[in-house]
Amino acid sequence: MPPLRTALLQSSGRPGDVARNLEILDAAATRAAAAGAGVLVCPEMFLTGYAIGDDVQRLAEPADGPSARAIGEIAARHHGLHVLYGYPERDGEQVYNSAQLIGPDGTSLANYRKTHLFGGFEREQFTPGDQPVVQVEVGGLSVGIMICYDVEFPENVRAHALAGTDLLLVPTAQMHPFQFVAEAVIPVRAFENQMYVAYVNRTGPEGEFEFVGLSTLAGPDGIAKARAGRDEELVLADVDPAFLARSRETNPYLRDRRPGLYSSLV
Amino acid sequence: MPPLRTALLQSSGRPGDVARNLEILDAAATRAAAAGAGVLVCPEMFLTGYAIGDDVQRLAEPADGPSARAIGEIAARHHGLHVLYGYPERDGEQVYNSAQLIGPDGTSLANYRKTHLFGGFEREQFTPGDQPVVQVEVGGLSVGIMICYDVEFPENVRAHALAGTDLLLVPTAQMHPFQFVAEAVIPVRAFENQMYVAYVNRTGPEGEFEFVGLSTLAGPDGIAKARAGRDEELVLADVDPAFLARSRETNPYLRDRRPGLYSSLV
Repeated sequence: MPPLRTALLQSSGRPGDVARNLEILDAAATRAAAAGAGVLVCPEMFLTGYAIGDDVQRLAEPADGPSARAIGEIAARHHGLHVLYGYPERDGEQVYNSAQLIGPDGTSLANYRKTHLFGGFEREQFTPGDQPVVQVEVGGLSVGIMICYDVEFPENVRAHALAGTDLLLVPTAQMHPFQFVAEAVIPVRAFENQMYVAYVNRTGPEGEFEFVGLSTLAGPDGIAKARAGRDEELVLADVDPAFLARSRETNPYLRDRRPGLYSSLV
Repeated sequence: MPPLRTALLQSSGRPGDVARNLEILDAAATRAAAAGAGVLVCPEMFLTGYAIGDDVQRLAEPADGPSARAIGEIAARHHGLHVLYGYPERDGEQVYNSAQLIGPDGTSLANYRKTHLFGGFEREQFTPGDQPVVQVEVGGLSVGIMICYDVEFPENVRAHALAGTDLLLVPTAQMHPFQFVAEAVIPVRAFENQMYVAYVNRTGPEGEFEFVGLSTLAGPDGIAKARAGRDEELVLADVDPAFLARSRETNPYLRDRRPGLYSSLV
């Protein structure tokens, strides 16, 4: 099974301007595909911007809304490219903080709703999702999805590991002063669960927030295979199934667990 | 509540020589007490050495055996000093990989048996313990105990956090090539659980192993308040209850958990 080249789009786009963000996504998809990427991952709420206040409600779209179709057309123009993007999802009266994976044929392969909302703004704007593990197969790998604050809870990533996730994609909106999450927590999550984790952030000031960039693809050895700085940039790294298999042989965390001792966690 | 000064004895002692290791512990206790420490933490299996093969069985002692009494006398000679030491514990036919906390009056306050045994050597020599959370109150703080590999499982440390542990003491025998645990996993455990973690290692070659030192006291901000290098050394750092309380206010991980979503972990 060949490595899956993964492209991390570290960008805040233009908050509030969906049309412009689709253009940025289109340009990134062209570059990612030309570099041989099979997956392009965008940050949390990339479609609309994050610090957009009540515009969350106005700009929210159904999972099969016009922007999903536009991104489907972008994906379909590039052979073999999957696109994961964050957006506010409208479902009737509810709005979720979601991330959707569009396949190379332009259709939706998976849609995840953030389960662990962060802070006052998110709790005001969103309904939390209730499905902790969303997975889909990409190029022979089991690919999982979560969003930002979700990954800071070890329970969530462990649930993915137990369900067989090989590569966890995590759109995020990680802000100052929490850069420790990008720098340290993400590599540890990859190591302790023996998986790859792609953590893709916004960057720079936006409303009251200062996003810290530092997007990272961490391997099961706890090493950052690629890491962005603070600029807007597209970084690429390979997810290697053979390396993952060898790493799991020498780090048997999942085999050595003792679930009977963990009852206080639930 | 004043800070609790914590002393980390990074030393492999002299493997196989219990009398000599008690002398080293005595000298460290004198230095720790003179520096104002309230707790002295020794590595895993400090009493006997780690890479001692079948001598584990011969040197194992009951929790109230002669070495426990000797360490009780050491602790009692220093006003207000607690001592945690790792040793092979004999209980009838069973031998456990244990750590015992001796109080300032020389009596045992707690005894913990490692629940997650590492590798072939440990599984051959030891019976795993079955009590995941052992705690005791020291200077107004809830102090927990685990050993080495235990701390690499996020479930174990989370169970301590949910039970209210403020300071987790972790004697270890951390070997090459796993220094990532000391460098990265320990600070992340402290951050994600909002507690202090004291990780106290052996160092240098011993039998087939090469221990990596790097003993660390990490705070709830994920920062190493003290970190040893590769030499034998005694490092000290303060555990500050006021800092811990403030950190928990701004990092509400335990409040934001959703236990109903974690059922696959048990």
